Amino acid sequence: MIIMVTRIALIGFGVVGQGFTKILLEQKESLKTQHGFEYEVVAISDTMKGSVYDENGLDLNKLLEIVEETGEINSYPGGIKGWDSLKTINETNSDLIVEVAWTDLTTGEPAISHVKAAINCNKHCVMTNKGPIALAVNELEALAKDKGVQIRYEGTVMSGTPALNLAMLTLAGSGIYKIQGIINGTTNYILSEMEKGLGYDEALKQAQDLGYAEADPTADVGGYDALGKIVILANVVLGANLKKDDPPCEGITKITLDDVNSALEEGFRWKLIASAELHDDGSVEASVAPKKVPLSHPLANVMGPTNSLTFSTKYVDDVTIIGPGAGKEATGFSVLIDVLDIHRLTSYK
Amino acid sequence: MIIMVTRIALIGFGVVGQGFTKILLEQKESLKTQHGFEYEVVAISDTMKGSVYDENGLDLNKLLEIVEETGEINSYPGGIKGWDSLKTINETNSDLIVEVAWTDLTTGEPAISHVKAAINCNKHCVMTNKGPIALAVNELEALAKDKGVQIRYEGTVMSGTPALNLAMLTLAGSGIYKIQGIINGTTNYILSEMEKGLGYDEALKQAQDLGYAEADPTADVGGYDALGKIVILANVVLGANLKKDDPPCEGITKITLDDVNSALEEGFRWKLIASAELHDDGSVEASVAPKKVPLSHPLANVMGPTNSLTFSTKYVDDVTIIGPGAGKEATGFSVLIDVLDIHRLTSYK
Repeated sequence: MIIMVTRIALIGFGVVGQGFTKILLEQKESLKTQHGFEYEVVAISDTMKGSVYDENGLDLNKLLEIVEETGEINSYPGGIKGWDSLKTINETNSDLIVEVAWTDLTTGEPAISHVKAAINCNKHCVMTNKGPIALAVNELEALAKDKGVQIRYEGTVMSGTPALNLAMLTLAGSGIYKIQGIINGTTNYILSEMEKGLGYDEALKQAQDLGYAEADPTADVGGYDALGKIVILANVVLGANLKKDDPPCEGITKITLDDVNSALEEGFRWKLIASAELHDDGSVEASVAPKKVPLSHPLANVMGPTNSLTFSTKYVDDVTIIGPGAGKEATGFSVLIDVLDIHRLTSYK
Repeated sequence: MIIMVTRIALIGFGVVGQGFTKILLEQKESLKTQHGFEYEVVAISDTMKGSVYDENGLDLNKLLEIVEETGEINSYPGGIKGWDSLKTINETNSDLIVEVAWTDLTTGEPAISHVKAAINCNKHCVMTNKGPIALAVNELEALAKDKGVQIRYEGTVMSGTPALNLAMLTLAGSGIYKIQGIINGTTNYILSEMEKGLGYDEALKQAQDLGYAEADPTADVGGYDALGKIVILANVVLGANLKKDDPPCEGITKITLDDVNSALEEGFRWKLIASAELHDDGSVEASVAPKKVPLSHPLANVMGPTNSLTFSTKYVDDVTIIGPGAGKEATGFSVLIDVLDIHRLTSYK
């Protein structure tokens, strides 16, 4: 096997970027022996923490240590400092850009510009940022195809639990016509806790205390986070061209303790279900709404912050995946899985 | 994109071979447009039904029609007749061999010879036959690596539900250290029916009437079918080198209606669980045995003939997949998924 060294530049060095870097370090030897994958991280650029570039590769142990101590990249000894994200994408000797800067679901920026810059200089780009994918995936995929590079974004749906790669790689050709699932962990946690007797407000407070929910929980409890993800699935897996705010979206804020209990008595459980379905005429319908799911259904038994998706297919009936939908390590890993698949494709002889 | 035509030879033309062929026909257009995949089936060789070879490709509609009418391939008009499996593998202009002849779990033959022949003449080989994989996967993978060809066998574990590809591709680098699951549909169906009040013998009889269980049900109810599959998972995913009959194996024949009911009263459900675990010292322990699983566990809620596997990983915690574990279409599809992945690798520019 010919070993090529993949040179990586990270745009953003927060929780996900650092999580990915730690996995790279921990798995360095097994990535080489099991996957023929060798890497150097040559550059990191973060709006808050500063930036560094060394064409020969950075010392990641030292870098993580310094960021932990000082909160900044700038005190890393050596390397070129001060390059912004676009200069880092365009002018470093990187082959692959990992875009893990912040998410803006309204404009998709600055991530969309980062991804376009990467594509335009013929670099592969892996991201976990829902913004560019929920807003512009079809445009970005067309640009990438034109340039012959890969853009990959497994982490945008269920972090490190296979969702897009499951559908696009391991279920390729299966004739997926419907996708439905639980793709927001916060709301599933709240509904699970309400079953234990907590009121909605109390359960939300608990989710906030545990770090599952933001101080402003609207994106989760209003269904908008799940909406962004189901739009990604509809566009990528079912070939739709939905805009992020097209599908009807209802959250869980109207679900009461009474609703939860009376559903259970009838053999059902309330779940916030995101779904997308390909119709015979080629149109795709998507929605997010609370639904009463029979207790015998695989989705009914997905509890706490866990996520799950059921793919209905022509040739394998229903295939359901269950796993975590968030987390520093899981999302960091989602970057690795895309990086490894790009390596597998580009290194195959 | 450069379109290459993949030339396929089928060794065996029973339920799986015909199922795969029907999917190829039905999806011809979408395989081309969505996956850049074009194919010709140039040869088929089946011990019972005869054989045919046409270097320019066979008319699959006609072929399926003739086999349905006459039970034989020989009456297909045109093409060279009478080549046996080895001659078909060695001397046709095929690039890829689909080995779907019969399964012999004792010797692995004739499948092992078929796979070796394919590798030796530098052809990729896709199979659904547990025999060669349960008995000789490490040897065959080493031969294939040496020749630079792919051998693939997704269908050997859960038919078309992603199991090996899920672990090896979409969870690559996740640090899988434990695999456990329900990988025999017949026994899971029997246990599910016993919960409805049927005795073991009655439930088995029903499984036989429905075609889930063979007339001699030993391979299923004795746990040996699940054993072959968990040995495959242990060797392929966890890097073990287990022989097929090494791990302890206990079936469901001793489970009584009383056992089923008293477990349920305690909040558990009896399931035939196959498991394999990688220990810190690098050893791998596997077993098949009935276990009481808490009702809150995803595996407890997998009912009827459905299969499921939970992968415990370092970076994504537990990831569970649920889907059918058998069926003509699902197993036929499992061949397609491997064929498409080989195409994806070999056609990437």
